[in-house]
Amino acid sequence: MIQVAVLGYGTVGSGVVEVIEKNKKEINKKSGEELNVKYILDLREFPGDPYENKVVHDVEMILRDPEIKIICETMGGINPAYDFTKRALLSGKSVCTSNKELVAAHGPELIRIAHANQCNYLFEASVGGGIPIIRPLNYSLTAEKIDAITGILNGTTNYILSKMEREGADFETVLKEAQEKGYAERNPEADVEGYDACRKIAILSSLMTGKNVNYEDIYTEGITKITATDFVYAKEMNKTVKLLAQSKEVDGKFYAMVSPFMIGKDHPLAMVNDVFNAVFVHGNMLGDSMYYGRGAGKLPTASAVVSDVVDCARHIGKVIMCFWDDETVKLTGIDEASRKFFVRVAAEKEKEAIAVFGSMAVVEADVAGEFAFVTDAMTEKEFNEKAEKVGIISRIRIEE
Amino acid sequence: MIQVAVLGYGTVGSGVVEVIEKNKKEINKKSGEELNVKYILDLREFPGDPYENKVVHDVEMILRDPEIKIICETMGGINPAYDFTKRALLSGKSVCTSNKELVAAHGPELIRIAHANQCNYLFEASVGGGIPIIRPLNYSLTAEKIDAITGILNGTTNYILSKMEREGADFETVLKEAQEKGYAERNPEADVEGYDACRKIAILSSLMTGKNVNYEDIYTEGITKITATDFVYAKEMNKTVKLLAQSKEVDGKFYAMVSPFMIGKDHPLAMVNDVFNAVFVHGNMLGDSMYYGRGAGKLPTASAVVSDVVDCARHIGKVIMCFWDDETVKLTGIDEASRKFFVRVAAEKEKEAIAVFGSMAVVEADVAGEFAFVTDAMTEKEFNEKAEKVGIISRIRIEE
Repeated sequence: MIQVAVLGYGTVGSGVVEVIEKNKKEINKKSGEELNVKYILDLREFPGDPYENKVVHDVEMILRDPEIKIICETMGGINPAYDFTKRALLSGKSVCTSNKELVAAHGPELIRIAHANQCNYLFEASVGGGIPIIRPLNYSLTAEKIDAITGILNGTTNYILSKMEREGADFETVLKEAQEKGYAERNPEADVEGYDACRKIAILSSLMTGKNVNYEDIYTEGITKITATDFVYAKEMNKTVKLLAQSKEVDGKFYAMVSPFMIGKDHPLAMVNDVFNAVFVHGNMLGDSMYYGRGAGKLPTASAVVSDVVDCARHIGKVIMCFWDDETVKLTGIDEASRKFFVRVAAEKEKEAIAVFGSMAVVEADVAGEFAFVTDAMTEKEFNEKAEKVGIISRIRIEE
Repeated sequence: MIQVAVLGYGTVGSGVVEVIEKNKKEINKKSGEELNVKYILDLREFPGDPYENKVVHDVEMILRDPEIKIICETMGGINPAYDFTKRALLSGKSVCTSNKELVAAHGPELIRIAHANQCNYLFEASVGGGIPIIRPLNYSLTAEKIDAITGILNGTTNYILSKMEREGADFETVLKEAQEKGYAERNPEADVEGYDACRKIAILSSLMTGKNVNYEDIYTEGITKITATDFVYAKEMNKTVKLLAQSKEVDGKFYAMVSPFMIGKDHPLAMVNDVFNAVFVHGNMLGDSMYYGRGAGKLPTASAVVSDVVDCARHIGKVIMCFWDDETVKLTGIDEASRKFFVRVAAEKEKEAIAVFGSMAVVEADVAGEFAFVTDAMTEKEFNEKAEKVGIISRIRIEE
């Protein structure tokens, strides 16, 4: 029997306990041995909970118990998760986590410590919730040179954008509704400003390069400026607006960014709606592949944590392949990235816009007092200079 | 250095050699050791080929060489691939294959022999070409009870159906064009009659159940009867027609079938067009997830074979988890499966159809001399009885 501890009995943590119990037949078969949740760490008491007798308040009981081989860290945040994880790994206990903040901030160090102590630090649940993406990148696409990853990695913003498109509603209205339904936090900043997606693409980019992509180096723009009018234009162009997190290697240069993009309705990512997430991966042999599913939620996320537990159970005392070095990847500033832009200007600026931007595709839509167009491909720097000269209402990047 | 042999220097086999050469940096890193292709088995000579000096004509050279640890079987067909594979595994050499016929026919036996000899029989490339699906099922969705798999598993038929939809063309016309372009074989039976998809869903169903689903037990219907008129109706209903291969567990009963289905344009599988494939998986915790990519082609398929080689290289002398027992799964006949049907009858049979089928949704379209409708959900048996009573033009199953 393999003894497991769960740190944090919140949404994901309680999901982990539930998944291990509900699917124990399948899980024990795949683990090769029976799994047992011995402790649940939480500051709170849970009177009446079926697992209340497993709840402990002192992490030392877990860290000092030699029986515990695998720990699920479902606390979130950097502290004290970082300290607990490090100590667990130093004592040879594998850690499986859904904590994207911690993985993005300290991934390579924690992996190095794990491997030095013949155990593992796994984080399938930290990106894309229940969608298998970390393991496919690490174990399946091993014959590929992966040169681009583009993902819809945040369920809250995707829910908001899908609803704005469907109902023609404005951002503020939909956000409020999402908050009422519990799809968005009361403080929605981490989601709507793109910070959550930024950490996730940092993790994926690091696995793509095998080195460390620092999330603080990634240009990040949220969806707060997207309006109902943008969707009116998008519809005319047979496009939609999605918050994309992307990472690309072009001629040895690495680019990474999080930003709203207009994408064609025939792009596979365009059909990823509501709380679903998807990751689009380009490899030099395979071409495009995509991984789609529920990017959040108690049971999907818990299922991913437990899949890591199974992997750890099958590799007690052995290191599971994961290449993520400390060496930092130098990202090329997005100023040099080249693409088309969708631009809105006041109607009276039509002539000036044409003079400054030159060749363009005008977008006709039923919007009064505006002139809208798509530029030719140009660098961000070039675009910003022209946009400043004209004075625009707004712009959205175009992904082709 | 790990020595590898490739059996069959055709499209996939030459792709394997190309992938190992082109991406050697990535592949050797992930393998943990350098891979070297020592032999290529083929009956033909390849004068001028950069690897011509590796080509051998006698399989004994490979099977008796103790240096060879991993064999890629890219010959296809049952004989002599079955014999070669068995002998390789018996001597402890792992085999990686793209041969769906062999895997569907002898999978559990070959896996058993491999494991008994501390080596592996891997077949990622046998389903979905380059799409990682076998490994996600075996290693990633380990915390799930998977109860349904639905796939677009054949590129040729998907290309034909996509083109029929887009151009309003008839099956025969598009098939001929596909043959001219090399997207369909001169003898297209294995694809258009659904036999290829049948073998693939048999493999996926076996992994879903952990037991053996015999491909000969799977009800299989091809796309030869689908017409341009069907797509006229489909469009009116905001649906499309796809050849789906599916496997479901409902209340302890297993169903599997291959058949054209009408699906809604908002279903994620509806956007899988041309030669792309996708596998939709439902688990009891995760809900829906989908894996999408190129289901065929030289380099994508070869990439999947090489990902198996990497897996074998990392597990020399060790068994990689794969549950696929000899025990045969008893499939429930599709007579008992219940669903809605899209039905076309001659205009003069309208009253009779209404009398026999009762409640229905009439489909209006610009088609002369016909009456078309969607039935309520009913079993196949019930449907067939009613259809025979009325005398219908055609019917297409509906997937919801």
